[in-house]
Amino acid sequence: MFGLIMAGGTGTRFWPKSREQFPKQLLKIHGERTMIQQTIDRLEPLIELKNIFIVALPIHKDKILEQLPGLPEKNIIVEPLGKNTAPCIGLGALFLRKIDPEAVMAVLPADHLILNEKQFIDDLAHAGALAKKSNALITLGIQPTFPATGYGYIQYDNKQIEEGDHKAYKVKAFAEKPNFETACRFMDSGDFLWNSGCFVWKAETILNEIELHLPTMADGLDDVDKAIGTSEEEETIERVYKQIRNISIDYGVMEQSENVYVIPGDFGWNDVGTWSEVYKIRNKDADGNVTSDKHILIDSNGCLVEGNDKVIALVGMQDTIVVDTEDAMLICPKDRSQDVRQVIDMLKRKKYMDLL
Amino acid sequence: MFGLIMAGGTGTRFWPKSREQFPKQLLKIHGERTMIQQTIDRLEPLIELKNIFIVALPIHKDKILEQLPGLPEKNIIVEPLGKNTAPCIGLGALFLRKIDPEAVMAVLPADHLILNEKQFIDDLAHAGALAKKSNALITLGIQPTFPATGYGYIQYDNKQIEEGDHKAYKVKAFAEKPNFETACRFMDSGDFLWNSGCFVWKAETILNEIELHLPTMADGLDDVDKAIGTSEEEETIERVYKQIRNISIDYGVMEQSENVYVIPGDFGWNDVGTWSEVYKIRNKDADGNVTSDKHILIDSNGCLVEGNDKVIALVGMQDTIVVDTEDAMLICPKDRSQDVRQVIDMLKRKKYMDLL
Repeated sequence: MFGLIMAGGTGTRFWPKSREQFPKQLLKIHGERTMIQQTIDRLEPLIELKNIFIVALPIHKDKILEQLPGLPEKNIIVEPLGKNTAPCIGLGALFLRKIDPEAVMAVLPADHLILNEKQFIDDLAHAGALAKKSNALITLGIQPTFPATGYGYIQYDNKQIEEGDHKAYKVKAFAEKPNFETACRFMDSGDFLWNSGCFVWKAETILNEIELHLPTMADGLDDVDKAIGTSEEEETIERVYKQIRNISIDYGVMEQSENVYVIPGDFGWNDVGTWSEVYKIRNKDADGNVTSDKHILIDSNGCLVEGNDKVIALVGMQDTIVVDTEDAMLICPKDRSQDVRQVIDMLKRKKYMDLL
Repeated sequence: MFGLIMAGGTGTRFWPKSREQFPKQLLKIHGERTMIQQTIDRLEPLIELKNIFIVALPIHKDKILEQLPGLPEKNIIVEPLGKNTAPCIGLGALFLRKIDPEAVMAVLPADHLILNEKQFIDDLAHAGALAKKSNALITLGIQPTFPATGYGYIQYDNKQIEEGDHKAYKVKAFAEKPNFETACRFMDSGDFLWNSGCFVWKAETILNEIELHLPTMADGLDDVDKAIGTSEEEETIERVYKQIRNISIDYGVMEQSENVYVIPGDFGWNDVGTWSEVYKIRNKDADGNVTSDKHILIDSNGCLVEGNDKVIALVGMQDTIVVDTEDAMLICPKDRSQDVRQVIDMLKRKKYMDLL
């Protein structure tokens, strides 16, 4: 099995810690290793480093190589610009099919948290076995633990494919991020899972599905396929990417295909999409604050205080995110942490280019 | 007339901007001059600089001389340690009586804001004229504009002393900082004023009153009086101050004396005691925020953001104080800004001596 790590994110939601040059996948969000290091670490028991490929933007290539010293440079597939997951996966699949026409690939985001790595690797191995002997598009679904409104959902039915003891269930429908009422209904129904964004399939299979559902994209990818390994590779990718459609694999392929299966999983997954998610996963003190001994919190509860050398003092603050860096800081209520995007917009309008 | 500026405050309430080395009176809190510079600036039309004396702690002497280049060094009377206003005023009065046995002195805090300086100087001049021909202790009272719970109050009656058109009314009682209900009653009664902490009297008069009401303190001051101008001056002040009672002039003398009068004034006075008072006096933008163009405030109202070079972004914050400095920062709701003292206590407990 091959690994294809999608590391093209620009991670604006973790500003001011994340910047264009240092998106979330290159940061330590939870623990002592960066998110991409953790992603590779947990994969290595199943997939050798030489078989792990990373799709990334040009500005991040050197930093990724620095963070992953054993990774061969050729294993970084450079996307000239971000065009969402469908082109990224299509491009990666071309490279892997060249190496092995029968290649089974696990497609994984570079910046998600997985607490139960053993369980994850087991599920991934089973998905690989199922994908190897079928033309299924297999996704890893997550048993919901609360009515989340921040995730997409997958509904499945009883039809299944099997490999030994392991089963994947036919996907009936994908659902976008629901409102709270709908999320509660999904929870109650019992046949909805969170969409983790982790996929397993043969490279050949996904390329065929792209051809079926995104024929124009497939034409562009064909051009790239012919150029790979030639002197025109980079130039062709650049040209094709300029025109290629910006679309997610979920919307462009998974929701269209008749061939999608899901393995219900439970491996402590979190996409860590906002500072308030970071608050949830970190250890809290007796007052429910995520902070360090350095800082001073008085009559304050439910806060996340992330800084560097400076002493930050909070008095009487509740449920507040405080993130301090050398040149910029963010303060917002926990339930507004998704709105840090608005700060990014304002930085652009104010032409604070060095803070992006 | 002489001026005696009380500049012994340690200004913990403006942490992290104020520090032991840089208390409030040495900071720019409102406008382009520091509070002590503004205090002297507004006094100079009435009192020559050579007749203005400043009581200060040893660690602040050099900084005060730097901020007030024309001030003779001998005009700084060094208190070895802070023992509240009664010893400070007694000590100052000794020095002034030595220069002029008939000296009339205006006693003024170094760190208050006065918006209508002309009116203030007029009131002060009238108080001086009244003090010159009487043995009255004259205070400047402020017509309350709202039921403040952060100020002491002065109740007066119809008995008065006069000088030309100018009158001072006999003080009936002093009241400590009231609760809100009592403050409303004070407002309604019409005969209560805020206690501004500005006093005018003859040096001889206040020393006599100290002798009457604080006889032990008067004994100590007598020792100092004999030593002033001799080689034992500094040592004697140090010895006396170690034992002298820590008490305010209000509590120790004014509330006891039969000889206290008040001039009701209205000169835009504010003691600027907390960051929330700073919020009140500063200019606000359309969203009611006190901030600079540098910072980014989204869906935020009623906030004060005071920083330096760093860009501070607030999203969805209400009525919050944010003060950022090189090595420390404070975040608190406006109505908790008096509790910054608790941060100081914690800094001491954590032995963050360089942040005090």
